[in-house]
Amino acid sequence: MVNVRRIKFPIFVIICQVVFLVLFGALVEYDDSAKPDNQDKKVDRAEGGAVTRMYPMFQDVHVMIFVGFGFLMTFLKRYGYSAVGINLLIGAFVIQWAIIIRGLLSDHGGKFTISVTDMLTADFAAATVLISFGAVLGKVGPIQLLVMAIIEVVLSQVNEHIGLEMLHVADVGESMFIHAFGAYFGLAVARVLYNDKSEDNPAEGAVYHSDLLSMIGTVFLWLYWPSFNGGGVTGDEQHRAVINTYLSLTVCTLVTFVISALVDGKGKFDMVHIQNATLAGGVAVGTAAHMPLHPWGAMLLGAVAAVISTVGYKYITPCLSSKIKLHDTCGVHNLHGLPGILAAVAGAIMAALSSKEKWGTSLFEIFPEMAASNATGSVMPGSDRSATVQGGYQMLALVITLAIAIVGGIITGFILKLPIWDSPEGEKFFDDNHNWNVAEEGFPGFPKSKYENGKSNDDTEINLMSDETKLS
Amino acid sequence: MVNVRRIKFPIFVIICQVVFLVLFGALVEYDDSAKPDNQDKKVDRAEGGAVTRMYPMFQDVHVMIFVGFGFLMTFLKRYGYSAVGINLLIGAFVIQWAIIIRGLLSDHGGKFTISVTDMLTADFAAATVLISFGAVLGKVGPIQLLVMAIIEVVLSQVNEHIGLEMLHVADVGESMFIHAFGAYFGLAVARVLYNDKSEDNPAEGAVYHSDLLSMIGTVFLWLYWPSFNGGGVTGDEQHRAVINTYLSLTVCTLVTFVISALVDGKGKFDMVHIQNATLAGGVAVGTAAHMPLHPWGAMLLGAVAAVISTVGYKYITPCLSSKIKLHDTCGVHNLHGLPGILAAVAGAIMAALSSKEKWGTSLFEIFPEMAASNATGSVMPGSDRSATVQGGYQMLALVITLAIAIVGGIITGFILKLPIWDSPEGEKFFDDNHNWNVAEEGFPGFPKSKYENGKSNDDTEINLMSDETKLS
Amino acid sequence: MVNVRRIKFPIFVIICQVVFLVLFGALVEYDDSAKPDNQDKKVDRAEGGAVTRMYPMFQDVHVMIFVGFGFLMTFLKRYGYSAVGINLLIGAFVIQWAIIIRGLLSDHGGKFTISVTDMLTADFAAATVLISFGAVLGKVGPIQLLVMAIIEVVLSQVNEHIGLEMLHVADVGESMFIHAFGAYFGLAVARVLYNDKSEDNPAEGAVYHSDLLSMIGTVFLWLYWPSFNGGGVTGDEQHRAVINTYLSLTVCTLVTFVISALVDGKGKFDMVHIQNATLAGGVAVGTAAHMPLHPWGAMLLGAVAAVISTVGYKYITPCLSSKIKLHDTCGVHNLHGLPGILAAVAGAIMAALSSKEKWGTSLFEIFPEMAASNATGSVMPGSDRSATVQGGYQMLALVITLAIAIVGGIITGFILKLPIWDSPEGEKFFDDNHNWNVAEEGFPGFPKSKYENGKSNDDTEINLMSDETKLS
Repeated sequence: MVNVRRIKFPIFVIICQVVFLVLFGALVEYDDSAKPDNQDKKVDRAEGGAVTRMYPMFQDVHVMIFVGFGFLMTFLKRYGYSAVGINLLIGAFVIQWAIIIRGLLSDHGGKFTISVTDMLTADFAAATVLISFGAVLGKVGPIQLLVMAIIEVVLSQVNEHIGLEMLHVADVGESMFIHAFGAYFGLAVARVLYNDKSEDNPAEGAVYHSDLLSMIGTVFLWLYWPSFNGGGVTGDEQHRAVINTYLSLTVCTLVTFVISALVDGKGKFDMVHIQNATLAGGVAVGTAAHMPLHPWGAMLLGAVAAVISTVGYKYITPCLSSKIKLHDTCGVHNLHGLPGILAAVAGAIMAALSSKEKWGTSLFEIFPEMAASNATGSVMPGSDRSATVQGGYQMLALVITLAIAIVGGIITGFILKLPIWDSPEGEKFFDDNHNWNVAEEGFPGFPKSKYENGKSNDDTEINLMSDETKLS
Repeated sequence: MVNVRRIKFPIFVIICQVVFLVLFGALVEYDDSAKPDNQDKKVDRAEGGAVTRMYPMFQDVHVMIFVGFGFLMTFLKRYGYSAVGINLLIGAFVIQWAIIIRGLLSDHGGKFTISVTDMLTADFAAATVLISFGAVLGKVGPIQLLVMAIIEVVLSQVNEHIGLEMLHVADVGESMFIHAFGAYFGLAVARVLYNDKSEDNPAEGAVYHSDLLSMIGTVFLWLYWPSFNGGGVTGDEQHRAVINTYLSLTVCTLVTFVISALVDGKGKFDMVHIQNATLAGGVAVGTAAHMPLHPWGAMLLGAVAAVISTVGYKYITPCLSSKIKLHDTCGVHNLHGLPGILAAVAGAIMAALSSKEKWGTSLFEIFPEMAASNATGSVMPGSDRSATVQGGYQMLALVITLAIAIVGGIITGFILKLPIWDSPEGEKFFDDNHNWNVAEEGFPGFPKSKYENGKSNDDTEINLMSDETKLS
Repeated sequence: MVNVRRIKFPIFVIICQVVFLVLFGALVEYDDSAKPDNQDKKVDRAEGGAVTRMYPMFQDVHVMIFVGFGFLMTFLKRYGYSAVGINLLIGAFVIQWAIIIRGLLSDHGGKFTISVTDMLTADFAAATVLISFGAVLGKVGPIQLLVMAIIEVVLSQVNEHIGLEMLHVADVGESMFIHAFGAYFGLAVARVLYNDKSEDNPAEGAVYHSDLLSMIGTVFLWLYWPSFNGGGVTGDEQHRAVINTYLSLTVCTLVTFVISALVDGKGKFDMVHIQNATLAGGVAVGTAAHMPLHPWGAMLLGAVAAVISTVGYKYITPCLSSKIKLHDTCGVHNLHGLPGILAAVAGAIMAALSSKEKWGTSLFEIFPEMAASNATGSVMPGSDRSATVQGGYQMLALVITLAIAIVGGIITGFILKLPIWDSPEGEKFFDDNHNWNVAEEGFPGFPKSKYENGKSNDDTEINLMSDETKLS
């Protein structure tokens, strides 16, 4: 049985990797701006400037996905290797798979191309899955996570395709298509996989330095969020997206500290709130960041997001766990779920309030379907949505997103329950020993008595902390 | 009394946040390059390129403020949550307040605009306050820090306005207006608030991993300092600023290691010096970084800064503490104060040595007031400063900066002494338990016997390190 | 004797620094694009745009050198100060020395200039030495490291000069000239300096949080590697380099997890593999990253690199140590050596397969010596290499690189054996106490019994971990 486990993960991943490689060989070419200058090339060299223009913001997002999400999840005292290591594994897996799925969804008939723009959107797809990872962190094994990723990438990209290409809605920072989708998909999976060993587990908690490592993730996410919301647009849309996100996050931070102190019995701050809820303003402004929200509008969204998110961490997450058996390890419901819904509603309201008078021609860049009835030179033939109708479509996209995420997540949860995926037993929840050879001295700040509670019996190479040696 | 404390911080911050939000609503609009394309817009879309051009350097500075300053201060073994968390709080607070104050100081009569340039200068303003934070780190509470921020932002922005708009001096990396101001303001506050509980406090020190976390801050500051000094200019000024800062820091690093070994009894290096004094070269070259210093000139400044700063940490800081009751937690005097004065003097000397022959038309870009008497086509009517006079103005700006900083800091110190701001008692200095719910296992590497010395009696939820449990 | 040690390092470094400063004063000027606008200036201001264009990728590389390499090496539980601190020292030292050596090797007759391009290549030179540092990490003192740096910079820059200027080979990410050179130079040094105290040394190992700190280095290296491979080129070459490196790393990561689980007795992952072998794909694609490898070609290289590297860590490194007395602390042979050779071979094969039909005019940008016999308008007179001949030159460059690195490393090793450089005794290997005043509580997770084994007797200020105090 040990042998089966030993080779199950390698076989699973190598099959996936061979399939990816074959599909890349059959389907993926360089974008014209990355092709050598031979006769096939259609653009002139100057277009190579896309790298110069987009690359810095792509790298900011890249840091968010792998440093931001990775270190944010190192808060668990005994699950840091997995947080940052499995985060890297999932990210690298999803990037390849998302390029394939997104290419197949595009209309280029068979072959498709890759450029720095596709690197950005592939990283966005990784974000979706890593948000779901946060809901089940510590309770599932690596094969389960990759199975989840395979399904979730397909569903999330189809959902985004419906929203952008069929409903023609705006969601510049993808607060619906990434944040709300990833959160509710992950929550549905977590609900199906519920195991009461995740409650009151002594391994689920932070030590002082794991909290500080987690802040590395928080701060990089906080800093680069304007690039996440503005990376996909240009010109004044980009400039507004950057300014709005920056301002929303500053207000969100202040209000998070306020609520964190207010809900604490002694008026002290809670690191969980600071690590997470300070970022909710980036999500909340994500759908409408490129719209003319006005600076104060972006700030107000940040304030509301902070209240929702911090209250969520304090009251909603424990309640979900005890009442409906939904254990959400990182509280993605509070950081990505509720703020994602807030973002979608804000986007719909902005759409309903939009007009050619106030937004000028920016209106048709943000909502192309509103062009025909308004523009002097019609941009898209046959399109003549009113502002109210566009607002309705924005809400429809949210409903579809939630439906696909929740139904897809439930089905995925049942697939992950199949006993073939090397799921960790409850005793090994939140414990790197399940997947890693842990450093000799074991986990920091973990007293013997508590450790024994969570100790598994079938693992002879368990590494206890050094103090045991000394005291025995 | 617990209840008062519990709501004092939330009430204080929420009032500030509401005031900020109202002022933003009343006064702040998007810059033309970030406005939608309606009839009010004056610039053409191409100007949106400002985001592409400035944004990468803005993000470098953004990382310096929140990762750099935040993690640099995590060296204290029991004050890491506050270092990086309260750093985030202050930064988010100051960004909003500085945008308002800077807008009011500008000449646009009432309303003013926000662009990525204002995001850069708002981050600069945050740097000023966070430098002062370093002087009082661990000895004041969050409300006190925000009161300090409110006052310091006004004074530092007025001081910068006097220097740039009235005296027309050059200070490209703001070594006078940010570093010297922030340091001496903070030192003045620290002197007024002096409490002998900050001496020989067992909580004031590092453990091995807190020193390494601190190096995250150091290295990011070291790397991105060229963006700090060059972010506000363009063309050859920017290119020189970047090269000069890069070279200055390399020399500063070598000389810091030299002096650190030289002043140690056994010739060993001291982490405090490496964490801090290696950065002094970035400050020292900050006023004149865009001037034609020559590469060797920038390097020489870096060497002098390293000597001053390292000697300061070894001899001056302990002396200030014992002789004039000035306890400077992070040694900001050595990293920002003395090197800031060095920068100002170097800038004045460069100004006095400048000439149209050597600097060409760059002279008038750097010192516009020297245009009339030199330029063929006069740039500014009525301005005809000689090089010596410009040098004099540079020194005058330093004197005014120090005067406003020190007098302002003293007054602020007395305001912070009012017993209404929830100041921590001496027993809770350098202790996250004052403001945070600390992770269950408590602080790392903190033996019981030492802890008891610094233990406060009125806090029933004090979290001792896990070893206590085991030994009792 | 203590006094001699105390001043040896300061004297050595200050002499070097003074020499550097004099050479900079005599030889180095600003590049035209960084000069003031006086009559000497030949380029127009627009050229200052080089900063805007290159600077973001330079900063990515800058982060790789100082955060990436620095924190990657913090995995040793008791050598973190040195990992990140001495990394900073060596980097700052090499940057200055490399600018001088590279300038002297250029053809400008005496004086030479500095621009942001030279900052990038100076950082590349630092990478070479820091790779060698990885091979001897913990076993040599700071003076030895700087002596090594002085010699290695000269040899590596001469080697690069031979390859690029005389053999006209392509090596866009310098996998030969930096990675292979740095690895085999360092390994040769390590072999000569072999000391059996480096075997089974209890200080050579990780604790839980040192492994996590190390991952900060890994992830930043992984993220910014596309900038390392693409920073030196423009247009479609740059775009391909970025895409190829990004894809290679994603596959390399998956395959590393696969092999890591496969070679472990229980199918668990090993942090050493994840920290290092996940990066091998960046090295392996480095020589040919700008060539039209096709996406699948880049991915295949990443897969092969992962297998070679992970197998190397598991089987080759222990074998080198036991069989040929070559102790490679960081396993640079597996991360930089073997993948560097793989990169060179891949580059040679690509060259041999290249043709004007497939590559268009990009062929002559990548291999200028192939121009005459192919181009319609000849680019370089007298050059008419065939594809096969260019492939041969690529292999020749690899052979020369390995020869200079190994012979140079052996000679350097013997120089470093001279008893004048303050080499640490075997008892002080992997121990920051040799060079640093370590924080009061000592090293984390280091039980007394183990510590005593590695304890040195002549150091009265040894800092044991706090537990000893409590237990005695």
